[in-house]
Amino acid sequence: MTPDASLRKLRAQAPLVHCITNYVAMNIAANVTLAAGASPAMIHAPEEVADFVPLAGALTINIGTLSAPWVAAMHRAAETAMAHGVPWVLDPVAHFATPYRASVAQALLAQRPAILRGNASEIMALAGGTGAGKGADSGDSVADAEASAIALARRAGSVVAITGPVDFVTDGGRHITLQGGAEIMPKVTALGCSLTALIGAYAAIAPAFEATAAALLHFAEAGERAARSCEGPGSFSAGFLDQLHNLQPEDLKAERLTWH
Amino acid sequence: MTPDASLRKLRAQAPLVHCITNYVAMNIAANVTLAAGASPAMIHAPEEVADFVPLAGALTINIGTLSAPWVAAMHRAAETAMAHGVPWVLDPVAHFATPYRASVAQALLAQRPAILRGNASEIMALAGGTGAGKGADSGDSVADAEASAIALARRAGSVVAITGPVDFVTDGGRHITLQGGAEIMPKVTALGCSLTALIGAYAAIAPAFEATAAALLHFAEAGERAARSCEGPGSFSAGFLDQLHNLQPEDLKAERLTWH
Amino acid sequence: MTPDASLRKLRAQAPLVHCITNYVAMNIAANVTLAAGASPAMIHAPEEVADFVPLAGALTINIGTLSAPWVAAMHRAAETAMAHGVPWVLDPVAHFATPYRASVAQALLAQRPAILRGNASEIMALAGGTGAGKGADSGDSVADAEASAIALARRAGSVVAITGPVDFVTDGGRHITLQGGAEIMPKVTALGCSLTALIGAYAAIAPAFEATAAALLHFAEAGERAARSCEGPGSFSAGFLDQLHNLQPEDLKAERLTWH
Repeated sequence: MTPDASLRKLRAQAPLVHCITNYVAMNIAANVTLAAGASPAMIHAPEEVADFVPLAGALTINIGTLSAPWVAAMHRAAETAMAHGVPWVLDPVAHFATPYRASVAQALLAQRPAILRGNASEIMALAGGTGAGKGADSGDSVADAEASAIALARRAGSVVAITGPVDFVTDGGRHITLQGGAEIMPKVTALGCSLTALIGAYAAIAPAFEATAAALLHFAEAGERAARSCEGPGSFSAGFLDQLHNLQPEDLKAERLTWH
Repeated sequence: MTPDASLRKLRAQAPLVHCITNYVAMNIAANVTLAAGASPAMIHAPEEVADFVPLAGALTINIGTLSAPWVAAMHRAAETAMAHGVPWVLDPVAHFATPYRASVAQALLAQRPAILRGNASEIMALAGGTGAGKGADSGDSVADAEASAIALARRAGSVVAITGPVDFVTDGGRHITLQGGAEIMPKVTALGCSLTALIGAYAAIAPAFEATAAALLHFAEAGERAARSCEGPGSFSAGFLDQLHNLQPEDLKAERLTWH
Repeated sequence: MTPDASLRKLRAQAPLVHCITNYVAMNIAANVTLAAGASPAMIHAPEEVADFVPLAGALTINIGTLSAPWVAAMHRAAETAMAHGVPWVLDPVAHFATPYRASVAQALLAQRPAILRGNASEIMALAGGTGAGKGADSGDSVADAEASAIALARRAGSVVAITGPVDFVTDGGRHITLQGGAEIMPKVTALGCSLTALIGAYAAIAPAFEATAAALLHFAEAGERAARSCEGPGSFSAGFLDQLHNLQPEDLKAERLTWH
């Protein structure tokens, strides 16, 4: 499915996306997903995730602000997603920073997400390497992490996306890169987490690889347009949501994706 | 009390509103309430809600992102509100989506909120019907839900508000409708939850029915004005807070409310 | 270190700031810190705070939305900070409002924060006096609280900052005041909490007293500039983040600080 067809389908179906994400990202991730055309739902209680996941078109799990009850809900949600054929996306935020976080990320990875998204440092560390990440920020370049992403995709059977100044997507066999977005984006908190939610939205209506490519393209295109008229990270955020909402399917040009 | 008199009183008193709301809504609901003229406080620990509720002019409870400790705090807060004569507002977000959520909503309803606010699907389901809601979004029209709202108002002894493209408010005897707001509003997350907080602010200084009408009018008027100059959901959000803050009492015209 | 030198160092090092803050503030505090030039990380699980604190340049603890597991994490984080020489900042939000909140604030104060920031009512109550605070809002003037701040600074061995229309900073011996900011600022939720996070960012690269002064100056200057072109609290927020990001070291003029 081409990116423009994916966006057309996303807008037509407004799929329900179940997001378990962190407290910092919750509002902006919901706004990003909603502006793009989907219907986000943030639900995390162990008592109800297994009832909600089957209603959703996709599930996203982000480990940004962990705690024990949420970890239990994440595992139950991922298990339910697998059982019901609901595609799920993992975002292993800063998993290399503490042993607790690292063990949660590895345990979730073993539950076979359809898609894995992280920055270069996160992907390198998840593949077993050591990167230069600091907190939620990457200290490594996307190019440095490509081999890790491919290895990880093959081992986990997932589509893996590294996002940064250049995005790289692989399913272990096919690889694409996408140059774009805007320099100001890392100055707005939780945009990566929001991108994970948007990937979930597309995964509800398209195959994992195509869904990831379409989400990255939608995000990058909106980012570039918003950056043109912003005056800093605050006005960028507002303009970015406007652009995510106003972009039309024909604005997502497949030729911006470079195949390798 | 007329809407303009209510806003005048709200601004003069800046009432303290105790909000137990969801993680997605917490920041925007606080900003909406603060911009309008009240003083919101987000407090949810079972250890302290019973001490805080009596200090507040009103309490609002929203079940958007439930978990067991929060449910305990909600019940304790509602109980304290009843004991101290503090009016409280219930927002049963997507309660039809899971059994856990449904049981919490019914248990809270039994604690006799002064005001109940939901979208059409939420009100229909709470009254015992079945709607077409999906996640946090309504799949039903406000007109379809009017009979449910009236029945619910009579049974629960509450003012019931259904909000959507047309808002409907009833106390079981009197009914009003209000047409207004803006098409872009459902594209901003947690605005309904924020409206619940604003209803709480007005409930602190006016009787339940009048408070609800004034809050809906303030919200709709600000939404319309913000929509005129926005370019999408991001710029709308910023403009909406500006308008909530800048609106003057005389801008809330009682003749916009249609009595039935 | 002069304020301009502090900002230069902040931008050059982008220090990692570990923030344990409330749900309302989490997104805006991260955006403020990021826009200013630091790298915020919001981490609160008791299982990992002790592993993360030593990686950070500073820790900030804000008690806005308490619960028992978070209180445990706050104590563990503060203890780790002391053990590793990581400066930490305490923000005792509305601690006077409930016995639970008051006891947590006093227990944290006993763990010797390097810096303590609050509004006038919070500082007066922490020093043992009684103020006129309501919820998260101060009911007292900064001038009324100066003696409390000085006494508290001497007793606790902390730098104490009272913020409001005029800011006052003392280490018990030296005192400075700073007039500035904008009238609209109290109409935006969690700006005080965000200032605490920014003080943490500066505390990672400068001594406590100088760090506090630089953060207040950066905040006030950005607030004034943003207020000039805003139309209400919504557009102010966006413009404020823009200005925090765009301000240059030479814009932080030490002569705006009045020494007493």
